[in-house]
Amino acid sequence: MTDTVVSSARKEVVIGFDRPFCVIGERINPTGRKALSEEMRAGNYSRVEADAVAQVQAGAHMLDVNAGIPLTDEPAILAETVKLVQSLVDVPLSIDSSIVAALESGLSAYQGKALVNSVTGEEERLESVLPLVRKYGAAVVAISNDESGISEDPDVRFEVARKIVERAADHGIPASDIVVDPLVMPVGAVNLAGASVFRLIRRLREDLKVNTTCGASNISFGLPNRHGMNAAFLSMAVGAGMTSAIMNPLHAEEMAAVRGADVMMGRDPDCMRWIRSYREPAPQLAEVGGAGRRGREGRRRRRA
Amino acid sequence: MTDTVVSSARKEVVIGFDRPFCVIGERINPTGRKALSEEMRAGNYSRVEADAVAQVQAGAHMLDVNAGIPLTDEPAILAETVKLVQSLVDVPLSIDSSIVAALESGLSAYQGKALVNSVTGEEERLESVLPLVRKYGAAVVAISNDESGISEDPDVRFEVARKIVERAADHGIPASDIVVDPLVMPVGAVNLAGASVFRLIRRLREDLKVNTTCGASNISFGLPNRHGMNAAFLSMAVGAGMTSAIMNPLHAEEMAAVRGADVMMGRDPDCMRWIRSYREPAPQLAEVGGAGRRGREGRRRRRA
Repeated sequence: MTDTVVSSARKEVVIGFDRPFCVIGERINPTGRKALSEEMRAGNYSRVEADAVAQVQAGAHMLDVNAGIPLTDEPAILAETVKLVQSLVDVPLSIDSSIVAALESGLSAYQGKALVNSVTGEEERLESVLPLVRKYGAAVVAISNDESGISEDPDVRFEVARKIVERAADHGIPASDIVVDPLVMPVGAVNLAGASVFRLIRRLREDLKVNTTCGASNISFGLPNRHGMNAAFLSMAVGAGMTSAIMNPLHAEEMAAVRGADVMMGRDPDCMRWIRSYREPAPQLAEVGGAGRRGREGRRRRRA
Repeated sequence: MTDTVVSSARKEVVIGFDRPFCVIGERINPTGRKALSEEMRAGNYSRVEADAVAQVQAGAHMLDVNAGIPLTDEPAILAETVKLVQSLVDVPLSIDSSIVAALESGLSAYQGKALVNSVTGEEERLESVLPLVRKYGAAVVAISNDESGISEDPDVRFEVARKIVERAADHGIPASDIVVDPLVMPVGAVNLAGASVFRLIRRLREDLKVNTTCGASNISFGLPNRHGMNAAFLSMAVGAGMTSAIMNPLHAEEMAAVRGADVMMGRDPDCMRWIRSYREPAPQLAEVGGAGRRGREGRRRRRA
């Protein structure tokens, strides 16, 4: 029953074992997006603005914000992006960088309780990121790799996650403020990537009692019909106990997969969120003689 | 590790715990299909023929065949349909009727080891269907309801399934020839329908050691975006251990859900079936100077 609470100035979001799945929008990230990267480098944030609004409209509960553009002042750009995004949407943010100074700059600009993305099990990273998480009262994504890289052995990855949770406790950060990313490998390269991540998610939940997240689209890297594969993975990961993912909320199949999984897990009472997401457009009031009312009646019947 | 083996004259299909998920095409069924019903009544089987071929082309591993048309000679029509379908496609069939005489007529016309759809826990049904299953050496779908109807209590449904398995043993039918349908209720009406079916599937697998099936699309009855909901349900049901479903193979989202789930469970080595189902069309040989070869190389690289 672990709840990880994050917030913006105006909104609280809870990632939790019995909560609706938390979709963290991945789009505000210049990695692999050349146009966005060039624009951000030139101080043009119009695409960031559009991505922020579109992702929240599509159903993202949080947004990841990354400003990793080579040979720029990443700390300054990340802080600017965080401020801009917070002025446009009220969902909590995940502040994402591999540079500790950028994380600190982003955190100092942030209003609310952020999710820091990320700490790993590497000694140098643990001792630079965890004090920041503590200082700003944030939550943190813990990626289960360390100096030896990413192990293919789920037991090793579990032990790395345990090490991070224990070290965080030494810094005064409770396990409920840690969201473990068990690391999703491409199933085209590692055939048991799906099955072993599901087992790992269950163990992280039952033994370490932590929430989990992942970069979901990694699973389908290099394969055709990536949306279909991501959707199957996401539904099954929710079934195994995963509580959030960093993903693209603009993809309809993936969003249906996590919303449908919420329904299946009994986390969408009376399917109200599902119905709100997918119901047919309301009938036009301009239509003749009470069609509007019949329309509403019809919907009510279907919900019964 | 239970395997249920069914066959046509030329092809064997195994429904099993560690096998690829078995898709049983549901389309050859006049229930709720007015045009098909009228045509079959008039002796016109052109739609049956088209449905048989299309479903197998879309990836069905078996076909369900039902001839339930009111006020007709159902035993004769079912036998005729079985013969026709077996002349067109070589997948094994599920012979589907609520009338015992029609099941016998269908079985007598069938070449191979059929799946009989279905027996329930009702006394009269057990004592009329199980002898037929034994006589024809068939396998059988066991639906977990009885004289008292469909219980909302998963424990009661489990006990009905156990009763059918025990009674079948009395008739010399092994548990491996029984595929239990735990009964999927619409999640719009019964909010915990998904979660309770997943638990039931796990128990049927672990305690009774039987294969499972269901009418998958029931889950989304009355809700919008039924394909998205069915897909989430199917992937998660495979994750919980379900080994087959009676479903519409012509729906792309549902097929991607079960194929993707097979990949996730490690049952599609090197994702070969996934890739065969979804790879981009091969490059045109008419294209200039070796484009075809580059195209093939590209695909090979992605598979590595």
